[in-house]
Amino acid sequence: MHKIERVLAAIPEAISHAQGQGKTADYIPALAAVDAKKFGMAVSMPDGREAILGDAEERFSIQSISKVFSLSLAMSHAGEDLFRRVGVEPSGTAFNSLSQLERENGIPRNPFINAGALVVTDILLDYLDSPKQDYLDFVRQLSGDIDVHYDDQVYRSEFDHGSRNAALCHYLKCFGNINNDIDRILDCYFHQCSLAMSCLNLSRAFQFIAHDGIHRAFNKPIVSKLQARRINSLMMTCGTYDEAGEFSFRVGLPCKSGVGGGIVAIIPRQMSLCVWSPELDTKGNSLPGLAALQYFVEHTGHSVF
Amino acid sequence: MHKIERVLAAIPEAISHAQGQGKTADYIPALAAVDAKKFGMAVSMPDGREAILGDAEERFSIQSISKVFSLSLAMSHAGEDLFRRVGVEPSGTAFNSLSQLERENGIPRNPFINAGALVVTDILLDYLDSPKQDYLDFVRQLSGDIDVHYDDQVYRSEFDHGSRNAALCHYLKCFGNINNDIDRILDCYFHQCSLAMSCLNLSRAFQFIAHDGIHRAFNKPIVSKLQARRINSLMMTCGTYDEAGEFSFRVGLPCKSGVGGGIVAIIPRQMSLCVWSPELDTKGNSLPGLAALQYFVEHTGHSVF
Amino acid sequence: MHKIERVLAAIPEAISHAQGQGKTADYIPALAAVDAKKFGMAVSMPDGREAILGDAEERFSIQSISKVFSLSLAMSHAGEDLFRRVGVEPSGTAFNSLSQLERENGIPRNPFINAGALVVTDILLDYLDSPKQDYLDFVRQLSGDIDVHYDDQVYRSEFDHGSRNAALCHYLKCFGNINNDIDRILDCYFHQCSLAMSCLNLSRAFQFIAHDGIHRAFNKPIVSKLQARRINSLMMTCGTYDEAGEFSFRVGLPCKSGVGGGIVAIIPRQMSLCVWSPELDTKGNSLPGLAALQYFVEHTGHSVF
Amino acid sequence: MHKIERVLAAIPEAISHAQGQGKTADYIPALAAVDAKKFGMAVSMPDGREAILGDAEERFSIQSISKVFSLSLAMSHAGEDLFRRVGVEPSGTAFNSLSQLERENGIPRNPFINAGALVVTDILLDYLDSPKQDYLDFVRQLSGDIDVHYDDQVYRSEFDHGSRNAALCHYLKCFGNINNDIDRILDCYFHQCSLAMSCLNLSRAFQFIAHDGIHRAFNKPIVSKLQARRINSLMMTCGTYDEAGEFSFRVGLPCKSGVGGGIVAIIPRQMSLCVWSPELDTKGNSLPGLAALQYFVEHTGHSVF
Repeated sequence: MHKIERVLAAIPEAISHAQGQGKTADYIPALAAVDAKKFGMAVSMPDGREAILGDAEERFSIQSISKVFSLSLAMSHAGEDLFRRVGVEPSGTAFNSLSQLERENGIPRNPFINAGALVVTDILLDYLDSPKQDYLDFVRQLSGDIDVHYDDQVYRSEFDHGSRNAALCHYLKCFGNINNDIDRILDCYFHQCSLAMSCLNLSRAFQFIAHDGIHRAFNKPIVSKLQARRINSLMMTCGTYDEAGEFSFRVGLPCKSGVGGGIVAIIPRQMSLCVWSPELDTKGNSLPGLAALQYFVEHTGHSVF
Repeated sequence: MHKIERVLAAIPEAISHAQGQGKTADYIPALAAVDAKKFGMAVSMPDGREAILGDAEERFSIQSISKVFSLSLAMSHAGEDLFRRVGVEPSGTAFNSLSQLERENGIPRNPFINAGALVVTDILLDYLDSPKQDYLDFVRQLSGDIDVHYDDQVYRSEFDHGSRNAALCHYLKCFGNINNDIDRILDCYFHQCSLAMSCLNLSRAFQFIAHDGIHRAFNKPIVSKLQARRINSLMMTCGTYDEAGEFSFRVGLPCKSGVGGGIVAIIPRQMSLCVWSPELDTKGNSLPGLAALQYFVEHTGHSVF
Repeated sequence: MHKIERVLAAIPEAISHAQGQGKTADYIPALAAVDAKKFGMAVSMPDGREAILGDAEERFSIQSISKVFSLSLAMSHAGEDLFRRVGVEPSGTAFNSLSQLERENGIPRNPFINAGALVVTDILLDYLDSPKQDYLDFVRQLSGDIDVHYDDQVYRSEFDHGSRNAALCHYLKCFGNINNDIDRILDCYFHQCSLAMSCLNLSRAFQFIAHDGIHRAFNKPIVSKLQARRINSLMMTCGTYDEAGEFSFRVGLPCKSGVGGGIVAIIPRQMSLCVWSPELDTKGNSLPGLAALQYFVEHTGHSVF
Repeated sequence: MHKIERVLAAIPEAISHAQGQGKTADYIPALAAVDAKKFGMAVSMPDGREAILGDAEERFSIQSISKVFSLSLAMSHAGEDLFRRVGVEPSGTAFNSLSQLERENGIPRNPFINAGALVVTDILLDYLDSPKQDYLDFVRQLSGDIDVHYDDQVYRSEFDHGSRNAALCHYLKCFGNINNDIDRILDCYFHQCSLAMSCLNLSRAFQFIAHDGIHRAFNKPIVSKLQARRINSLMMTCGTYDEAGEFSFRVGLPCKSGVGGGIVAIIPRQMSLCVWSPELDTKGNSLPGLAALQYFVEHTGHSVF
């Protein structure tokens, strides 16, 4: 058995202390209903090998992890111009804060807070003919899984509890930082959040970010090398809500989390991995997920620090 | 000639220094187009006499002055319960600030900032069968002028530049402080702001606030005596954007201003008056209007202080 | 028995419902030790008569009521220039907030928040040879009581818990809005707060604000007529922490409160009065004190609205 | 010539476009007087070799770079307990903001903003007998240069313009997050900021952070391996004011900058380097310094991404 597989095999016992401590997201009913005990992990290695653990092939709501797909797709179309409308710095305030926009004239701090992702979605609408279908096709291509889909129940739940995102979008518009119809933007954005994918789907889909922007299976560039680096650095400094500093210390890798309990991590030029457990800490990141990633880097030596 | 008429007659010369210094509102095109040189004033006295000056009978966009009509009508239906959802304290921040709501859990500081007026409008929708028509009828009855109307051009301009109010409304909703459909609330709110009335219309319409809530012409209560006092005190502390302290000193009366350049003032148990000039100071209040009110109280001795 | 005396006599029963609900200030130990059951009231009438009730002649810590003395004394020296360094608008944030200064470049919103009173004290130091003694003499002259004194125990308690005021003072200095030595300013400021006076002392001392700035006993101007009006309007809009709107409605008079439980009120051109009870509401104003003032204006008809 | 030397030799021409664009710090006179054209760079390699360029041996004011020495020394004494009093997350607001403390109850976001460094200094005072001398000895030992010293002129300039730091310190104290005498803390803090060191001094002194906490020359642990990782991750996410995201992208290494124009960078388990040029961008980081680091990682392949 290879090293990665051995480390993976030890994780369930190693992280058992972190289980039963967090709680599932409750901001929308569809997420609160998920079984808190689920745990899965998948690693996509440079030689094409893959290692999986637990519920690695069960689909869950990827939520904010979708913001990396949105950013990648928007950068592939709009390039660096995108960053005239969205910043690249950590926010230091809640991911859905309006007062940050008030202070900074409608420029969201980065593409991974909600306001930033809404501007990115607005940009996508400028380039895509059928934004929802094109976006889904993009993610299916990246993950190599034609069955990846939007979860309609989650989508409806997002839509029903979407007031804050609607407020953000209207507010961005009064600063001139929204061009398209707000209902279309929100519809597209809520669909992105509702994507149902497995750990294995995600570890595969994120491989291009570990490999200078190149999709390994098709040997095709998704984004440029520099853009891949931009995405990695944004994940490192802004990818895990208001816990980027703690992740940087404990994991030391570019990560992106979602309140569905998934966390994707990148080992630059080597691997992409994904862990999933719905039990969240107070900042909105998966508690067992963070413990698992920490154990993984400690025992494989893959932290960048 | 009575004293009030003599004081009024002296105002144009007395305030000439204050003219040509401000600028018309520019946040919507319909207001920017108004002739800056307009000036009118009207006083409705306790014995039924009226005194007018200049363009006192020309209609202008009353804008935020409408918030007093909205509050009065809502209080007449919902009573003090209204203040569970809107505060009664000065805001100290911009009239359209979202961060105040963020800090204070979606309770607007008072009914005269935009967020507060939106909650008041939401309450009106609970009670009125035909909100826009009922509201118009209410104002027509108060002013005794069947020709008072919504200005369609101003309404459209408000609607086209309504992103911030839409953001406020969606944001209030995520705190559970909005019950009705947001598009209906905004439609009703923008119509209120677009009311076209003259100084004489307004000085008449505000008489009930000077007279313990009683409509003088019909000898009919519009609001209770206590409610009239609440409205007066709110006008005193919150009626003139971020300039309530300066108004309290220079005028010393409950006032409510609008960015159309109108200012209504109340001399409790005596008179209601209205002045109009579209030239605004940096806080959004009419510069010549403030000067005229200050001259008026100085020479009639009607400041409460 | 005159009307005022009759109304006063009815107050203890009328406000009994408001007693036992609040709590004494706890930010400094010296205040927490005061007997919560104390209650006193004094009225100084235009004809020189006085009416007193309960513990009207017992001295208590006047705390922020001193800010009116400081402002009056500073205005008598510096005139309107003072308002280049302190605003005249309600704050809408906590009375001791630093973030307001951060937003508004070191100009405190008004002279009755701590930052504003510190700037006023800095101005006093420019004009007074022996600031603490001169200030004490000023208050003794106003109240006609040579025994008014600084309470040393309260002063020490203020000093020991003065970090926030020290922070405010240093912060004002970095905006260039402090000229004198900070330790001297704080020493003078903490002494002001520690003044021990009775209701009767205060109702007498505030007479000049009710009477166009003229000290009645000596028939001598303390401040100009316009300055007295400025002080009244500031008390009306900013005198009772974040409860100015509620006071304006329930009392309808210029008031200034302190966390020692005292509240002074002005009936312009008629009376000055003072009520004291150490039980505070959540905003820092005396609960029974507010109830007593409300009863008083309701039954004497003296609200300005 | 080795590769590192070749890359270094090419830097002056490569970054010439970035020169003449920034401006020297002006918040204290002592810094404004420095020659803007200075440029130096030094690299300390794993095999003990060193490479230098330009003014690499000229001393400059290290300013906030000292915060890494303070943190390291404090962690070596207090361990992880330190992080009960200072956070580890990026701030998203100005490095000297008071309103962040107001929102977060006196816990500074991280040890590299001023408030955080003041708390760290307070902790140092708990452990060091002669804080200023012990601190200087620590830095002399790390850099191997007995001549490293506090610059008295810079210290006095800091002291004379220290109001904001004094405000921060008093404000921290009212949250109970300061234990020692404030004047002693500020004296020690301003001395730290005034340290005069060269690029070569700094690249040597930071070697232990690149090498798991071990001082290479003495083969002695300065901090633990885990602590070195903590320091690296804090430099990565919080080391360059409000430009950590941009540094992460363009340099991709843990960095710490100072407004004296110095920037230290760490290549984990390999090298430490330092660049100096006093021309700052609007965020307070050296413009030519950032350009030099970017060129260096691009041509040596040392970015972690």
